[in-house]
Amino acid sequence: MRFMRLICTYCGKDYPLDQPYQRCEDCGEPLELEHSKGNLRGDSSIWRRYAEFYPFLDQKLAERLTLGEGNTPITISEKLSEELSNVVYLKDETQNPTWSFKDRGTLIGVIRAIQLGFRKIGTVSTGNMAASLSAYGAKAGLESIILVRPDIPEEKIYPIVVYGSRLIEVEANFGEIYWKSLELGKKVGIYFINSDDPFRVEGYKTIGFEIGEWMLEGGKESGKDGKDGEIDYIVVPTGSGGLLRGIMKALFEMKSSGIISKIPKFISVQAEGCSPIAKAYEEGNDRIEPIKEPKTIAGAIADPSPPSGNEVLRKLKKHGRVLAVSDREILEAQRMLARSGIFVQPASATTIAAIRKLKDEGYEDMKFMCILTGAGIKVPSAVKEMFKFESLHIQKTDLSGLEKVLEGG
Amino acid sequence: MRFMRLICTYCGKDYPLDQPYQRCEDCGEPLELEHSKGNLRGDSSIWRRYAEFYPFLDQKLAERLTLGEGNTPITISEKLSEELSNVVYLKDETQNPTWSFKDRGTLIGVIRAIQLGFRKIGTVSTGNMAASLSAYGAKAGLESIILVRPDIPEEKIYPIVVYGSRLIEVEANFGEIYWKSLELGKKVGIYFINSDDPFRVEGYKTIGFEIGEWMLEGGKESGKDGKDGEIDYIVVPTGSGGLLRGIMKALFEMKSSGIISKIPKFISVQAEGCSPIAKAYEEGNDRIEPIKEPKTIAGAIADPSPPSGNEVLRKLKKHGRVLAVSDREILEAQRMLARSGIFVQPASATTIAAIRKLKDEGYEDMKFMCILTGAGIKVPSAVKEMFKFESLHIQKTDLSGLEKVLEGG
Repeated sequence: MRFMRLICTYCGKDYPLDQPYQRCEDCGEPLELEHSKGNLRGDSSIWRRYAEFYPFLDQKLAERLTLGEGNTPITISEKLSEELSNVVYLKDETQNPTWSFKDRGTLIGVIRAIQLGFRKIGTVSTGNMAASLSAYGAKAGLESIILVRPDIPEEKIYPIVVYGSRLIEVEANFGEIYWKSLELGKKVGIYFINSDDPFRVEGYKTIGFEIGEWMLEGGKESGKDGKDGEIDYIVVPTGSGGLLRGIMKALFEMKSSGIISKIPKFISVQAEGCSPIAKAYEEGNDRIEPIKEPKTIAGAIADPSPPSGNEVLRKLKKHGRVLAVSDREILEAQRMLARSGIFVQPASATTIAAIRKLKDEGYEDMKFMCILTGAGIKVPSAVKEMFKFESLHIQKTDLSGLEKVLEGG
Repeated sequence: MRFMRLICTYCGKDYPLDQPYQRCEDCGEPLELEHSKGNLRGDSSIWRRYAEFYPFLDQKLAERLTLGEGNTPITISEKLSEELSNVVYLKDETQNPTWSFKDRGTLIGVIRAIQLGFRKIGTVSTGNMAASLSAYGAKAGLESIILVRPDIPEEKIYPIVVYGSRLIEVEANFGEIYWKSLELGKKVGIYFINSDDPFRVEGYKTIGFEIGEWMLEGGKESGKDGKDGEIDYIVVPTGSGGLLRGIMKALFEMKSSGIISKIPKFISVQAEGCSPIAKAYEEGNDRIEPIKEPKTIAGAIADPSPPSGNEVLRKLKKHGRVLAVSDREILEAQRMLARSGIFVQPASATTIAAIRKLKDEGYEDMKFMCILTGAGIKVPSAVKEMFKFESLHIQKTDLSGLEKVLEGG
């Protein structure tokens, strides 16, 4: 392992790699691994392919603990492109081991925990991240502890506990549990791989590298030639900010390594019912204000006090913008995506809702790459919600009447 | 397109490619595409990579209509290998666009339908296949018609209709609906891409090719070196028989093309509550007898009258064997898989249940490749069933009590 440092995203203070801090001791802002330079290799495993950008990674451990995360497809939607008057590419992160992008970060976080000597891992989540952590904990033979709020719906419990993890309901708000877990974790011997842990963020870089490869290949995976695989905007559903940070870091690392010459702009999307980053962006503030009562159908990005919010805000002022979309717009977008063949969860549909807004602002013939973060099948209640807007029409017949029904259309 | 024929798997009668028959006019047995020879190419798209084995395929159409199916990972489970005293490789088909292997076959079936001039497609299914067909129908802009039995549970309806397809409940048994749909389809202009449609089977070949590539690479994707990627058995959950036929065809095509020299044996697994193929195999019969009242938790393979049953029986007598496992064994195997990090549906867990049986028969140190056909998240009711055998233990605390709970373990 080459010598590397963890650096504070705000004040720049650096820390050696062999200590367990996840945030800056001085200013509390998130740490990140220093930038890497390297080249992409040909290999079917993402960790070997991008190995030069992971000089700290134990490849043997990655091979042993992988569940086959990453290598997700990019397709074009001709239908959505037409409806939205812009070219719409979809990066389908629902095709991961636990059906969300979280898996890419969880693997690297779990390896980090093991290397620091922890035998227990944990996270604060009610959804994608909890399932992901539980799965990788099971694979690695670690004990997994999931902290949730007492109002967790039953449909979310089984997909977590099925992997054998411990579920603890904590009567407090999301932000309080996040900070408390980091404080207690070190004390009681649990490495909490929360939403913006620096190593989790490193794992998310692979999405950026895969997009970079696709750009270099001229977008040939898209089903339609993108002009040299150029894209104008990467659209990222944003809760804690960890995913956006990872994707951006990968793009900048590729640029400084001379692999790509141009970096797309970034559109960060939040749900109106919980949009602290969008609010700070609109009001021109430097720091986010926590949301008191988050309320949105996009549970996966409903982070009332995003721990990487300030950092994302800093980055986006230079390299993009933030938008918020309503639940109604989200559900309509979820429906549009399903009618194009991809069934995502509400958080992922914010991407299409955002492009609709931008279209109304006059954006045209731009190329958007949407990160579809998680599977719709994971949130059955949201589908029922969708069908509030249309009737569920089921026809009934016996065998002798079937021909007539089929002809009826 | 090179000249190709459809050939009856039983009597050998052949048909030109440009007619819409899906089964033999004379004997009623399934047709299949004649064998192809070719080589594997380096490419990130499975359809371009295996193009030589799909001389009939319109690659342009495949690029336009793909949802990014295939390229699923193979991992080793050290935990299961230890528990089962055999090496257990897992091919994770849950990482597909609609989270089951069906997507590979649906794409090729949809392209077939379009090439024959159909504007409507259909299928007979309550689960994986219905969702898959609906998704690809949506992507292709075709009308999708799904025939189901009236007892379809609600949890299965939304993941189908979300894509915008038409659901028709037919009061008849599964086998009757299958045959009626083929008869009526041609008449009313609907191409029914049922479970063992010859083009659907062609799509499933890609699983075999991916396993072949992995074998050639020495099993390096496995996280542990398989000896030159050798495997002894491919274990396949079997309902209609379509999946098994596709995987076998690919292996034989690669062998006759000189790409691989040895073909593993095949273990076909059925659920005891609906195991017509296993029954015929055990009794030494040449033809399967339909099951009157199928009853199993493994709904995805509960085909009481498997349309490719006789063909699978013929093939397995030479190249493998058939096993049946009970619901209790299936649920235990589903739990074992989840505790190893992979959450599958009951049908997929039959693979691990089968290896447990074989272990009891004395199988040891063999290398098994299990096809994990579909995601557990799609069948919430089965997870509740799993938890009948253990209590669901959730701890509760407030913030001040959290440290104590975490320490408690």
